[in-house]
Amino acid sequence: MRMYDLIMKKRNNDILTQEEIRYMVGGFTKGEIPDYQMSAMLMAIYFRGMNEAETLNLTMAMADSGDTLDLSGIQGVKCDKHSTGGVGDKVSLILGPMAAAAGIPVAKMSGRGLGHTGGTIDKLESIAGFRTVMEQEDFIRQVNDIGIALVGQTAHLAPADKKIYALRDVTATVDSLPLIASSIMSKKLAAGADTIVLDVKCGNGAFMREEAAAVALAKTMVRIGNGAGRHTIAVISDMNEPLGYMVGNSLEVWEALEVLQGRGDEKLTELCITLGAYMLYGTGLVKRVTNGKRKMKRVLEDGLAYKKFMEWMKAQGADTSSLSNTKQLLSAKYRLQILSDQKGYVREILADEVGIAALMLGAGRENLDSVLDYQAGFRLLKKTGDYVEEQEPIAVCYANDNSKVAEACERFQAAYRFSRERQEPKPFIKAVIQE
Amino acid sequence: MRMYDLIMKKRNNDILTQEEIRYMVGGFTKGEIPDYQMSAMLMAIYFRGMNEAETLNLTMAMADSGDTLDLSGIQGVKCDKHSTGGVGDKVSLILGPMAAAAGIPVAKMSGRGLGHTGGTIDKLESIAGFRTVMEQEDFIRQVNDIGIALVGQTAHLAPADKKIYALRDVTATVDSLPLIASSIMSKKLAAGADTIVLDVKCGNGAFMREEAAAVALAKTMVRIGNGAGRHTIAVISDMNEPLGYMVGNSLEVWEALEVLQGRGDEKLTELCITLGAYMLYGTGLVKRVTNGKRKMKRVLEDGLAYKKFMEWMKAQGADTSSLSNTKQLLSAKYRLQILSDQKGYVREILADEVGIAALMLGAGRENLDSVLDYQAGFRLLKKTGDYVEEQEPIAVCYANDNSKVAEACERFQAAYRFSRERQEPKPFIKAVIQE
Repeated sequence: MRMYDLIMKKRNNDILTQEEIRYMVGGFTKGEIPDYQMSAMLMAIYFRGMNEAETLNLTMAMADSGDTLDLSGIQGVKCDKHSTGGVGDKVSLILGPMAAAAGIPVAKMSGRGLGHTGGTIDKLESIAGFRTVMEQEDFIRQVNDIGIALVGQTAHLAPADKKIYALRDVTATVDSLPLIASSIMSKKLAAGADTIVLDVKCGNGAFMREEAAAVALAKTMVRIGNGAGRHTIAVISDMNEPLGYMVGNSLEVWEALEVLQGRGDEKLTELCITLGAYMLYGTGLVKRVTNGKRKMKRVLEDGLAYKKFMEWMKAQGADTSSLSNTKQLLSAKYRLQILSDQKGYVREILADEVGIAALMLGAGRENLDSVLDYQAGFRLLKKTGDYVEEQEPIAVCYANDNSKVAEACERFQAAYRFSRERQEPKPFIKAVIQE
Repeated sequence: MRMYDLIMKKRNNDILTQEEIRYMVGGFTKGEIPDYQMSAMLMAIYFRGMNEAETLNLTMAMADSGDTLDLSGIQGVKCDKHSTGGVGDKVSLILGPMAAAAGIPVAKMSGRGLGHTGGTIDKLESIAGFRTVMEQEDFIRQVNDIGIALVGQTAHLAPADKKIYALRDVTATVDSLPLIASSIMSKKLAAGADTIVLDVKCGNGAFMREEAAAVALAKTMVRIGNGAGRHTIAVISDMNEPLGYMVGNSLEVWEALEVLQGRGDEKLTELCITLGAYMLYGTGLVKRVTNGKRKMKRVLEDGLAYKKFMEWMKAQGADTSSLSNTKQLLSAKYRLQILSDQKGYVREILADEVGIAALMLGAGRENLDSVLDYQAGFRLLKKTGDYVEEQEPIAVCYANDNSKVAEACERFQAAYRFSRERQEPKPFIKAVIQE
């Protein structure tokens, strides 16, 4: 088999076989197939696409390229939740303990943030003492003991995906549906869960801006998951503004605690309840989704989810006093109000721009070596549908380093788009995709 | 400027500017732009194509990437002829002295063969004593003295094209019209002639199998040439069988001598006369193409072209006694008749298959290190339109190494396609493209 012939086949719109895809992924991962052939192949895939079988085969080949987690030591049906990435997305921090409190074992690996999106591991590391590295044995024991453990991704999970993604990133081949879907799903398959619930974002701050594209991505991922023998469900939600009111690591931990105590943003809470309901439904713990929603609401109202969060924090070494006195989480040196330069109804907030503004403050990573400022970020005071007067505060900026504050606040301000009339609010949860 | 953005632009079907193309070609040639980005770009160009301005800019950038020949020391309008490559193509050996005899200064650089096509330099080197390396000063003096000099291509002519071609060759991006056209024309522009006559082949042994594709390639190259200020004309001719009767280095020298003495194959002679006429017309030495044809016929009939050939051979050191006693050129150790396994009219002869069969005998190069057997090759006894009885000889195989003779003859035999009825012969010269 020669990589040249495989490139030619894909270029000519022929279908690659499972054997050919495994040869390509294996050869590239081992360094036997050079970058320049792989990038030509990726561009050919960008133009020709991949059919369902090819996409599944690519995903499986990448999932099998490194370690795969064996979660058989954990009792019960394991469920993983994955977000396609958004700004202000602290769902894992809330949904993890909610699911654990409702009886779903949560054994999760998360990543760090890069560019305008944050990462769950960074948010957790903003909590004093919290450990994100754990031996696999301890990881499994903790899930059996308290129902939840969350660690950083090991380097050996789907290394093929890592290497291919790095190449896509420099060859303008990131935004290809089969490549996006297989990249996400390869890591999920390697991470070992039986059931996968996907949180697919749609809008100006997401991979997929249009609902049709988000639905297509969700369908592809659901088919891959089911094709690989994992029950997979996707929930599509709006990302035409940041999720919730907080953007920044400590700030988002603060907001997670608010939701867990029943005081959180309505849409964010709704999303956590919905995803949790599908986790219960997907693992068979409830027969109907409405029952799942009821159960999820209850663990919030009863304080069980909050209790589970604290138990989890303690188990992974966090200094829980910092979490009880939540003011500490909002104690950045500088706190500046950002005023509106216009009046009107907030029509949309460019979430990726807010993410970049937060990155400028030190809340995100420009590159892999960037050092984070956990306390930096924004608290949004106005969101879509709110009326704003000129010179009225729209947000608070939190910063420790004031060198880029002015620039960041200007960028943040420009992310707001207004209309004179109040727009009819669109549904926040747009669709649920399952087979 | 970043290569990433240029790949994205081309991928999204935007037009690359002259500045962007020069940045890309320059950066890649210097090694500042990595192979994997260039190959993604090449695949994007394969799918998106290039418009006229982009193709011209790419050609000029590659032509300017290394040395460019200064032919101003040669008196008269310099004309270069270029073939897109075929099997049995000995035109340069015949047309060079014809043009020189008709008053066109011929200062030509030629290449070596690779794969199923031969190279003019290999054919010349099969002549005992012939020198294909010359100082530029001597090269120009010889053209001024006797009207013709032909040398091997220097490494520094269009190095960008060389590097890009090598990458295309391993990434399935060879057959892209703008890339083929710019590759050929960049070398021609760098080689310095004022007028360029292109010999574009069309058929089973050519880059372009269909006439429409050959016309498109010819038009693109003519526009590039004219756009770069060189008067360019393309003649499209048939390559659904090898050109002439001989395939192999010494054998083709023998056939060139036959044509120069007025005893050559009709189509091959017609092609040389036509190309020569357009060279005379293109350089302004005749006002009408028919006058050019008349002049070219005359230099053959008068023996002036043959005389010029011998003069040229002597000037570049050839042992002309070997050329006077032409039997020596046909003196391979083994000579075997190949018999037909069918009867009928020859419908076509797969020229690339004949080229590969010749390569197996040692007449061509499998890779850059292959050692050539100058005497090896085939003499075709039957060509398209001829009637053949079963077991009648269709060709003679010439070989010195008999290890692959059987295999090569079998392959040669399989290249013949027969029909029961005689097909109406199609015109050999299909079109002439000029602006």
